[in-house]
Amino acid sequence: MAKYLALTNERVAEEHLAVLVARIGELGGAAEIRPSGTRLLLVVTGPGPELVAELAACEHVGTVLDGDRPHPLAGARANGTRTVVRVGGVEIGGDRPVVIAGPCSAENPRVLLDTARAVRDAGAAMLRVGMFKPRTSPYSFHGLGREGIALLAEARHEIGLPVVTEVLDVRDVELVAGAADVLQVGARNMQNYPLLVELGRAGVPVLLKRGLAATVAEWLHAAEYLLAHGTSDVVLCERGIRTFERSTRFTLDLGAVPVAKELSHLPVVVDPSHAAGAARYVGAMSAAALAAGADGLLIEVHPDPARALSDGDQSLDFTAFAAVTGQLRRIAAALGTGLAAAPDLALARP
Amino acid sequence: MAKYLALTNERVAEEHLAVLVARIGELGGAAEIRPSGTRLLLVVTGPGPELVAELAACEHVGTVLDGDRPHPLAGARANGTRTVVRVGGVEIGGDRPVVIAGPCSAENPRVLLDTARAVRDAGAAMLRVGMFKPRTSPYSFHGLGREGIALLAEARHEIGLPVVTEVLDVRDVELVAGAADVLQVGARNMQNYPLLVELGRAGVPVLLKRGLAATVAEWLHAAEYLLAHGTSDVVLCERGIRTFERSTRFTLDLGAVPVAKELSHLPVVVDPSHAAGAARYVGAMSAAALAAGADGLLIEVHPDPARALSDGDQSLDFTAFAAVTGQLRRIAAALGTGLAAAPDLALARP
Amino acid sequence: MAKYLALTNERVAEEHLAVLVARIGELGGAAEIRPSGTRLLLVVTGPGPELVAELAACEHVGTVLDGDRPHPLAGARANGTRTVVRVGGVEIGGDRPVVIAGPCSAENPRVLLDTARAVRDAGAAMLRVGMFKPRTSPYSFHGLGREGIALLAEARHEIGLPVVTEVLDVRDVELVAGAADVLQVGARNMQNYPLLVELGRAGVPVLLKRGLAATVAEWLHAAEYLLAHGTSDVVLCERGIRTFERSTRFTLDLGAVPVAKELSHLPVVVDPSHAAGAARYVGAMSAAALAAGADGLLIEVHPDPARALSDGDQSLDFTAFAAVTGQLRRIAAALGTGLAAAPDLALARP
Amino acid sequence: MAKYLALTNERVAEEHLAVLVARIGELGGAAEIRPSGTRLLLVVTGPGPELVAELAACEHVGTVLDGDRPHPLAGARANGTRTVVRVGGVEIGGDRPVVIAGPCSAENPRVLLDTARAVRDAGAAMLRVGMFKPRTSPYSFHGLGREGIALLAEARHEIGLPVVTEVLDVRDVELVAGAADVLQVGARNMQNYPLLVELGRAGVPVLLKRGLAATVAEWLHAAEYLLAHGTSDVVLCERGIRTFERSTRFTLDLGAVPVAKELSHLPVVVDPSHAAGAARYVGAMSAAALAAGADGLLIEVHPDPARALSDGDQSLDFTAFAAVTGQLRRIAAALGTGLAAAPDLALARP
Repeated sequence: MAKYLALTNERVAEEHLAVLVARIGELGGAAEIRPSGTRLLLVVTGPGPELVAELAACEHVGTVLDGDRPHPLAGARANGTRTVVRVGGVEIGGDRPVVIAGPCSAENPRVLLDTARAVRDAGAAMLRVGMFKPRTSPYSFHGLGREGIALLAEARHEIGLPVVTEVLDVRDVELVAGAADVLQVGARNMQNYPLLVELGRAGVPVLLKRGLAATVAEWLHAAEYLLAHGTSDVVLCERGIRTFERSTRFTLDLGAVPVAKELSHLPVVVDPSHAAGAARYVGAMSAAALAAGADGLLIEVHPDPARALSDGDQSLDFTAFAAVTGQLRRIAAALGTGLAAAPDLALARP
Repeated sequence: MAKYLALTNERVAEEHLAVLVARIGELGGAAEIRPSGTRLLLVVTGPGPELVAELAACEHVGTVLDGDRPHPLAGARANGTRTVVRVGGVEIGGDRPVVIAGPCSAENPRVLLDTARAVRDAGAAMLRVGMFKPRTSPYSFHGLGREGIALLAEARHEIGLPVVTEVLDVRDVELVAGAADVLQVGARNMQNYPLLVELGRAGVPVLLKRGLAATVAEWLHAAEYLLAHGTSDVVLCERGIRTFERSTRFTLDLGAVPVAKELSHLPVVVDPSHAAGAARYVGAMSAAALAAGADGLLIEVHPDPARALSDGDQSLDFTAFAAVTGQLRRIAAALGTGLAAAPDLALARP
Repeated sequence: MAKYLALTNERVAEEHLAVLVARIGELGGAAEIRPSGTRLLLVVTGPGPELVAELAACEHVGTVLDGDRPHPLAGARANGTRTVVRVGGVEIGGDRPVVIAGPCSAENPRVLLDTARAVRDAGAAMLRVGMFKPRTSPYSFHGLGREGIALLAEARHEIGLPVVTEVLDVRDVELVAGAADVLQVGARNMQNYPLLVELGRAGVPVLLKRGLAATVAEWLHAAEYLLAHGTSDVVLCERGIRTFERSTRFTLDLGAVPVAKELSHLPVVVDPSHAAGAARYVGAMSAAALAAGADGLLIEVHPDPARALSDGDQSLDFTAFAAVTGQLRRIAAALGTGLAAAPDLALARP
Repeated sequence: MAKYLALTNERVAEEHLAVLVARIGELGGAAEIRPSGTRLLLVVTGPGPELVAELAACEHVGTVLDGDRPHPLAGARANGTRTVVRVGGVEIGGDRPVVIAGPCSAENPRVLLDTARAVRDAGAAMLRVGMFKPRTSPYSFHGLGREGIALLAEARHEIGLPVVTEVLDVRDVELVAGAADVLQVGARNMQNYPLLVELGRAGVPVLLKRGLAATVAEWLHAAEYLLAHGTSDVVLCERGIRTFERSTRFTLDLGAVPVAKELSHLPVVVDPSHAAGAARYVGAMSAAALAAGADGLLIEVHPDPARALSDGDQSLDFTAFAAVTGQLRRIAAALGTGLAAAPDLALARP
């Protein structure tokens, strides 16, 4: 029994769907139905060529994929088209690379709003901030948590930048999905399958960090989980892998940028801050990531890195961040493009 | 402000606790109270020597630990005592190494019961089985899930072996804790902090697999999460780390056995099956793990490995498993001990 | 044009060889002739089936191997026979595992002779010592060098143990080959091809340490270099690979023992000392290596580790070494064998 | 007894040197004298402060370094000056990054000369070519060897590009030093200490590739060997490290570029070809390396990659190489500089 994935053209009418499923049954197969962006995904198990032929011929079915391939939905498409993730007026994976910046965690509203304003002024088009922080010690500061989520809406409205934030717990997905524009899967959760399933279903774009021991293939498998459960908006994020070398916190694998863009149609962004582990290397590694073809950067910025409650060593202050974006602007120009602009503030405040 | 951990002697009376907390407040500190096995854990933040001295002098406080050390509860104790985890009549971390065996996942009740009987006969003292399987592909068999949990109780009653099973989702902790003797944290979830918190609170021993890119220190940090949220029964499990070498599925790090036993008071068991990735290497690696000082082994066994729905390549059949335990028995004897016995079936069936 | 390796039965007469080479030429091929133990190796490049058939049929040719396989000479043989390396009355790869012990480097003759006597008394059958030490700093002690080589002969005669010692420089091969029983290729030189070629030609058994980033396949490729240039006596030595884990100096890959023994007919020994990097872990890791199926162990021993000029941290003193060999003897017995005995001293002194 | 390194101002007269060495002896120390570029290096072992003070005060001594620091000569200088290596009119480590290109190995003179001309036309300022190739199999093509060395002089004269080529064997150093402008130490030989000593003494600049399991610190230790034995012209070359990720041949560690430039005064170039292992990734990784701050690039180019006898997969053809240098030129401009120019051909032919 082989596996096939059939994507409908659009949300096909119930009655047509029922006919289709019945026909699959007649041919000896079975189908499970899941949402997939604005379409439906039929995960079909069945006996082979005849079934595929009929699925492919069906007027309500747009695409039939081989479900036994490693990652049928995340893998590069036969027609070469690429996914562009649209977030509050910003495109990730479009012509212009996107700078996403902000504090590792927000200790208080001031830190968040000041940083958001500063990164917007310096050229960031999106804001990143952690409210739930995975920390090595159970006694460390773990972010503002559920209380901090309200702040995200405020920052969005006040500063007009779409917001990316991490979710750690399946029980928080709904709350955070209501307040953020992009939900982040952290490196330590790349293979937390219940979380991937819930995030796939949440109806909000997902930024998927590569696990620190994950091969590119495993990273795409994790993306497949998201895509197989409903979302069609996934952004891959390379953030450094674990190797024997410890002079940087992790080893930023920039070769993974062209590789992932070849193997998949999803946008690929890079987080140089966690890989570097030291602010003084972030500029060089940001520039390198852009030159390697990244669709965006995720950079940690803090008003006063020495006092940050988490990851201060690797955070840029406002001046250093402005210098980095200046450099990135010149490199983007050399690559024949420019940095993506922040959304118009007037539009961002409806 | 420094951090201290104060463990009470036993479940101290509410009124004594109130006095203690008030006194901490007077000295400029603050305390958060959590259960810790049969005792209470006070996570105290405060200004230093005077507070520590008073905590140490308090008759209801047994131990005061430096909360700014990397893993105060999981780290080796000053007095050198070690944790022995007692599970349904079996001791893990006692004098005799424990063989824990069973199928990777149970496709059906027959596979589970047949394997349980066979591994018991061959010398296993505990049963392992997966009901929730983290699989690379969203379209693979993911275990029997919640429906399979009832089977665990049946196997326990029928065969009389305590059961270890993995939990993937915080929403399943309560259900599984009611049916299994030991809850397993898989390698991919070693830093899934919400899961660690819930498992720490569940009141059931936890077997913590080492993450595939986790240092020994990070593994102990994860154990600290469990211990800091209530349980005092944690078993560490080495299962192979990810390296450049791919002739085995992972690289079994047996040096981590003496290292973890030196740095921590927790028992350390080894899973040679996932590391080997091939049944024909499991015997040699099991023997090596025992000789390295492991407190137990976690071995995959299946009645018909070629037909297993997951991890068949690395599963032993009954004959091969019996050969392995024969070898382990001889090595245990050479080490001056023997394999832990399975609980008496009459006792196991109350 | 394919490649074939033809091994002659014994040192075939010049005239027969000339006929054979001429015939290869007639069939469109060409042959390069090299010694191979007591036989000759013909590296044949030629057009295919007819040539192979004729080679195979030739009365002077014993074996024809496919030269385009990854490591035709080092790979497992079709008939399953294994190489036993015989060194001064000791067999490596035979029924009994061999303990090889001695100082990392010998600072002076006393250290060498005292240690040799002590390890012999405790059960070692061979002596290891470094005269040329690869050191990280150009300003460190680099061993006694060429002056120390005379000591090897003295130790051999005095104590009666065959000697293993490392060679770093192609210009030293001849000198050391005259004084030692086994020449060691260090991990850092595993792919030093000119050195491998000269050692292959030296007519003395070679112990080949696995490079710290070498896959098992690459290790066998390095063995192929040795075998392709004359020697038939190669011992593989696992000594720990480099991974992200640093609580031991290297990660001892004991899974590589059954893997290398499956893929190759060569004996496999293990050096637990360099992997551990700390004497207190050496016992557990030696026992584990033996249980994993190693044909021998290479253990660092020093009369006064705290004063050793190199690698003192990982060296056992005499008492600790005797405890380790006691344990190894019990494990060997559990495996149905015993440790190889040292040669009779009377025989060792001709 | 501590260790000090004293560098003389210039080649001090024999008589002054004799006085200095005698004085060191009077103060209880001992000195070994080695050449160091145009100066002398005294490796002094002695009792401490008084000796240092006297060395520092001596008019013939320029610098006194702490010989017990990890890499006193290779480490960053107190005054922040950096080494610029000058090779036949090209500066490595100066203001302009240098593109070094050519075939992995030259199968014949035509391949070498055609490629040299093409890379010069496209913007390379130096030529790289392998005559001695370290190959995994003893039966593969190993380069033209000593016969090919004469070709280097011809290429230099004909095309006017300085030449970098690898040396594998200490016995070839003198020959190759007479024909090439820069001698390359391959990754597999980074800790081949006899080779480093001979190359340090050869009086020709050395390009030192990072070992595939070498930390940045170990790479600088290897550079220290070169510097401690005579040369003052060392170029570091990052070429990818070995990690668990295999979608590229090695993992290019571009974080090592800013790290090595911070820890050392030596120029740092990058070889994207070996790391990528596939020509289609070389452009992105070259651009990234330049943006990360590399002082140059080492790129494999071949007239007909599909027919190359080694490493064809990762070689660019002439058209692809010209596209890459076009991109590099734009990025260099964005960084406020430009690519280093090739030497004037008239000057190159004396």
